[in-house]
Amino acid sequence: MSPRNVDVTDLVSRAQAGEARSVARLITLVETESDHLREVSAALAPLVGGAHVIGLTGSPGVGKSTTTSALVTELRARGRRVGVLAVDPTSPFSGGALLGDRIRMQDHATDPDVYIRSMASRGHLGGLSWATPHAIRVLDAAGCDVILLETVGVGQSEVEVAGLADTTVVLLAPGMGDGIQAAKAGILEIGDIFCINKADRDGASTTRRELRTMLSMSDRQDGWKRPIDLTVATEGTGVPELVDHLQEHASHLRASGQLARRRTDRLRREIQAIALDQVRRRFVVDGGEELDALAARAFAGDIDPFSAADTLLAESDA
Amino acid sequence: MSPRNVDVTDLVSRAQAGEARSVARLITLVETESDHLREVSAALAPLVGGAHVIGLTGSPGVGKSTTTSALVTELRARGRRVGVLAVDPTSPFSGGALLGDRIRMQDHATDPDVYIRSMASRGHLGGLSWATPHAIRVLDAAGCDVILLETVGVGQSEVEVAGLADTTVVLLAPGMGDGIQAAKAGILEIGDIFCINKADRDGASTTRRELRTMLSMSDRQDGWKRPIDLTVATEGTGVPELVDHLQEHASHLRASGQLARRRTDRLRREIQAIALDQVRRRFVVDGGEELDALAARAFAGDIDPFSAADTLLAESDA
Repeated sequence: MSPRNVDVTDLVSRAQAGEARSVARLITLVETESDHLREVSAALAPLVGGAHVIGLTGSPGVGKSTTTSALVTELRARGRRVGVLAVDPTSPFSGGALLGDRIRMQDHATDPDVYIRSMASRGHLGGLSWATPHAIRVLDAAGCDVILLETVGVGQSEVEVAGLADTTVVLLAPGMGDGIQAAKAGILEIGDIFCINKADRDGASTTRRELRTMLSMSDRQDGWKRPIDLTVATEGTGVPELVDHLQEHASHLRASGQLARRRTDRLRREIQAIALDQVRRRFVVDGGEELDALAARAFAGDIDPFSAADTLLAESDA
Repeated sequence: MSPRNVDVTDLVSRAQAGEARSVARLITLVETESDHLREVSAALAPLVGGAHVIGLTGSPGVGKSTTTSALVTELRARGRRVGVLAVDPTSPFSGGALLGDRIRMQDHATDPDVYIRSMASRGHLGGLSWATPHAIRVLDAAGCDVILLETVGVGQSEVEVAGLADTTVVLLAPGMGDGIQAAKAGILEIGDIFCINKADRDGASTTRRELRTMLSMSDRQDGWKRPIDLTVATEGTGVPELVDHLQEHASHLRASGQLARRRTDRLRREIQAIALDQVRRRFVVDGGEELDALAARAFAGDIDPFSAADTLLAESDA
């Protein structure tokens, strides 16, 4: 059943009981696309759905790690179990190790009710790691009440975070026309909550005013009035209000039925992506001989690409 | 057989005879993803393979349209029938109309042995229009000896051009560290022939020297020594030598067996992309009810995404 002596059922039970090493082991199993991926996925399915998944996004320099750390502190003070996934699409490094600029996270490293994990981006799709949804499920099954998903903000990955999160927090900093940049990057649409960090700096209230104007021009129809919080994450200022808003948004999502809708949409996309990947793999089974033969026939003018695609599908379905 | 009164067989015969209107009509049929796309594709399959497909790539300002026009003049002087596809991934406009900055092309607009077409980028994949390979086949079947594929140089599309062309010409201009930019952008690897246009400007020989050094550091193993041509396209200077090199490369590709290999690889990718697109369409047949139901079950924890993907595939294969 379980080659290489991995007892998935046992690992999942231990992870459920909060054993950090088993959580780490399970994330590694999904991240390395191990033979056990399907087994892990099946074991997790009935155990997930309890966690509130929060995405944090924003340009480099706005204080994402600091804000994440401040959120962990506040959430722990409220008795919540917290998981943190720091996804870095540009980093080749992955695993439990803390990255240099996440040093503040070490405040929480010994807390058994905080699980912190860095993930590198892998896979053919670029941007966020394809394994991220699986890792979220591991943390969810392990009893995390809140999962903070922090990404290195580089264009597309910010939008992908919103696709994986129940609630997306867009972080900005005063000045630098950050609000306008956000508008350009399409960040305004994905934010459920806006947070102007480093709010002790000049220009915080101007940025808030600009942002409020821009938000008013693009009203959403989902009955949620997007709050704009001011924080100084290094000192914890404004963080309780931010957490209040996060909880309010979670309640709003549940009460309005949007939580189920967002999560079902997300699963729909994930199922479709997995299915297409399976098909792609079938095409190259046996070194892709069938595909090679069809390409050779198309080159000879004996078949057109559409008919060749039909044949390929008929063969791989069989 | 042919709804909307399109007689594909007749159109293809007329296009083969060089009738410009039928060529235009066929490209429109493939570009608009009409119901006749498959029929057109099947009719073209036995007729193609004769044309030498040349991609021209380079940063804005290096003189791509001018060089394309100068190449047309020289190729016509040698008695070749020429097709030009100007692919603009950023333009919403498409069709036979000449774009403003392609004004020089009007020199050739009345020549019955030159076919010029602008194509906008469509489709889900971004960059080069998915219809471009089909349009190339239409021009090929219509008896074009050479097809010039010109793209607005924006990152990824330059690499895509190389994927569709038999021979890729990388255009540079003197100065501006263009050579180094090219190296950074990965353009050096895709070029079969390099052309420093505006060679009457200062710095042309320096750019050639720099480029030669860079090329020598990344030698290719295919037995082709990449030439560096100097041109002043506005005056036609250096263009005969460039065309000589294009012909030499075509001969090299044929003699070495690389032509068949490149084209077969290209067809392999195209067949696979069409097949995956068919599968994607099956998933959303009947409004995607099956996929919706599976996502709902996954949300309820009754099934995991991998098993859901298996079920989706089993259903859509049936």
